[in-house]
Amino acid sequence: MSGVFLIGAGMTPFQRAALADLTGLAREAALLALRDAGLPAAQVGAGYFANVLGPQLTGETTAGQFVMAALGVRRVPVVNVENACTSGSTALWLAVHGVQSGEFDVALVVGAEKMSVPGLGLLHGGSKEIETQLGLVMPASFALRARRYMYEFGTTAEQLALVSVKNRRHATHNPLAQYREPVTLAQVLGSPMIADPITRLQCCPTADGAAAVVLASSKVARLRRRAVRIDASIQCSGSYENPVDLARWETDRRGCLLAYERAGIGPDDLDVVECHDAFSIAEIMHTEALGLCEPGGGGLLVEGGATTLGGRIPVNVSGGLLSRGHPLGATGCAQVVEIVQQLRGEAGARQVLGARVGLAQCMGGDQAADAKSCTVVVLSV
Amino acid sequence: MSGVFLIGAGMTPFQRAALADLTGLAREAALLALRDAGLPAAQVGAGYFANVLGPQLTGETTAGQFVMAALGVRRVPVVNVENACTSGSTALWLAVHGVQSGEFDVALVVGAEKMSVPGLGLLHGGSKEIETQLGLVMPASFALRARRYMYEFGTTAEQLALVSVKNRRHATHNPLAQYREPVTLAQVLGSPMIADPITRLQCCPTADGAAAVVLASSKVARLRRRAVRIDASIQCSGSYENPVDLARWETDRRGCLLAYERAGIGPDDLDVVECHDAFSIAEIMHTEALGLCEPGGGGLLVEGGATTLGGRIPVNVSGGLLSRGHPLGATGCAQVVEIVQQLRGEAGARQVLGARVGLAQCMGGDQAADAKSCTVVVLSV
Repeated sequence: MSGVFLIGAGMTPFQRAALADLTGLAREAALLALRDAGLPAAQVGAGYFANVLGPQLTGETTAGQFVMAALGVRRVPVVNVENACTSGSTALWLAVHGVQSGEFDVALVVGAEKMSVPGLGLLHGGSKEIETQLGLVMPASFALRARRYMYEFGTTAEQLALVSVKNRRHATHNPLAQYREPVTLAQVLGSPMIADPITRLQCCPTADGAAAVVLASSKVARLRRRAVRIDASIQCSGSYENPVDLARWETDRRGCLLAYERAGIGPDDLDVVECHDAFSIAEIMHTEALGLCEPGGGGLLVEGGATTLGGRIPVNVSGGLLSRGHPLGATGCAQVVEIVQQLRGEAGARQVLGARVGLAQCMGGDQAADAKSCTVVVLSV
Repeated sequence: MSGVFLIGAGMTPFQRAALADLTGLAREAALLALRDAGLPAAQVGAGYFANVLGPQLTGETTAGQFVMAALGVRRVPVVNVENACTSGSTALWLAVHGVQSGEFDVALVVGAEKMSVPGLGLLHGGSKEIETQLGLVMPASFALRARRYMYEFGTTAEQLALVSVKNRRHATHNPLAQYREPVTLAQVLGSPMIADPITRLQCCPTADGAAAVVLASSKVARLRRRAVRIDASIQCSGSYENPVDLARWETDRRGCLLAYERAGIGPDDLDVVECHDAFSIAEIMHTEALGLCEPGGGGLLVEGGATTLGGRIPVNVSGGLLSRGHPLGATGCAQVVEIVQQLRGEAGARQVLGARVGLAQCMGGDQAADAKSCTVVVLSV
């Protein structure tokens, strides 16, 4: 138990919005979160801003200061955080410590990313590494993992593709997701091959967007009926690739175990999960790392319907990265926004009935040894 | 009292090192800090990495993960922090919360900057703002403040220049400073005019470099004779320019008052100060904000020798940014490294005799409303 609560959550639509700017997107999400919390900007004790590509694409630094100023969050501490795909959830992790330390009672965490920049926008993560320069870009890296997983466990290309089918079906109920049309198994398998066995509909699309959450101490949260408890917030690093075992993510597994231990629960206690489905194989491997199935059982798990809305443990009911898109700095916060809405029973047609315990898992970083970051947040009501 | 201690500190020389890379610089400083702490990398519970220009100049993201991996700091949380000139001290501020929260007992904070990049390296801070685009670049902005300060308080161009004379004299005793030759008043006043009244020798030079500190809980620090106590670590934001009063920094003043309150001391209790002398006028205004003199008294303070080594309250005994140079991400940590060495009595020829309480003040950010960041750290033995 962290003693810290989530009292507000909000996000923009995730979509290609070439004309939107980073500050505007961030401001929109933050205002929704503050309104949701019923708090004026003046009560925010610190601002944490997560973003990855701003400095590279548009030369922006101290972007968080501009965002907070645009919100009317003044005079308080403001920090800019970058941690690849886990930037938003790392900012949340830092904000939890700030509240725990007693430095302030309310923290605003905003993650935002502008990826579709006219004339720019190329994502070249890991370009420092010789493997990437030689062709091991993200889809290729995930394809290698998929091949190994299929070889070891007999997982089929159809099972991989079913992740996209499931998440796109979930997204039909999420008005903020970029792609809301369902797709069939044949469509997923028949879409252009990106890196065998991963087809285009098994890759998360580019998107612009922002998401924000408001954290509070128990003192502030006590009187709020809709407050959600943060039972665990974990961040850890490690190898992206396990050089001796491509089919397992040791870092991921370690982060999940730490989170369960901290929250005092196990996988069976979870009602709803958001995980980092940047590619279809990623969800399969994450569900395994989360202990939602036996080792090697990720393919059967999705095929059997357990992770579908209405199933034993619904995963990526928001539509996931595969449907929403993946604005890097925003994703870690957006996953938490979804869990908050689920635990409050405010998720509309995609509501997991009676959800009381949820988990958001995120992963990112370069492919080099120990350059990976993993975050896990456990929330409950 | 924060309950957090500094048990190790180290930094690279600050100099133009066009062939050095960011990871290498950071690693060098971090190894020095770990050796100083007498701790193996395996005992580090979290890594905080501060950097500003990496993404812009060389496209680096998640640079902290590469730095920590190069050090052998594995599996633990790693975060990348950006907050303009205060990036290093903001990372320290975050690490203090991490230790306070009980998440880990030892944190490694590394600030680094590679500014002299062949073919690149232009610093265009604040370029988003129309005032900057129209010519209000940093030296011009500080020149406006200097003019106003001189007009209000009768401060002279000579008094401004004496800041550079003093700090360059201090730097003769600092082997890690970039410029270690003393300069005369005539040389400072006669150097090329950059933005009247600020001449070239009153502007901090470009530098590459890194600095690192090791933080520890009282549990770990207890048995260490050389541990330094963190009595206060403050970060706040606000206006860089006070539109109705160019001659005062309200944010700076507020940060300093918060730090004094937290540490339970006043300016008279300080033995040694490092402040953000990016330009000569900045030190004059910071010493005033710190309460080391009456309002308007910054010029007389330096002229009277109070802030010289051997004076009442020595300021920038390291030589300051004016002598060392200002590798953005590293500066906030480098100031703390200097104070740690002073409080341990390890500063050699520039030692402030009997120093027991020290303060490091840093300031940065864009010039826009509320886009400024200020950090203040109070340390004692």
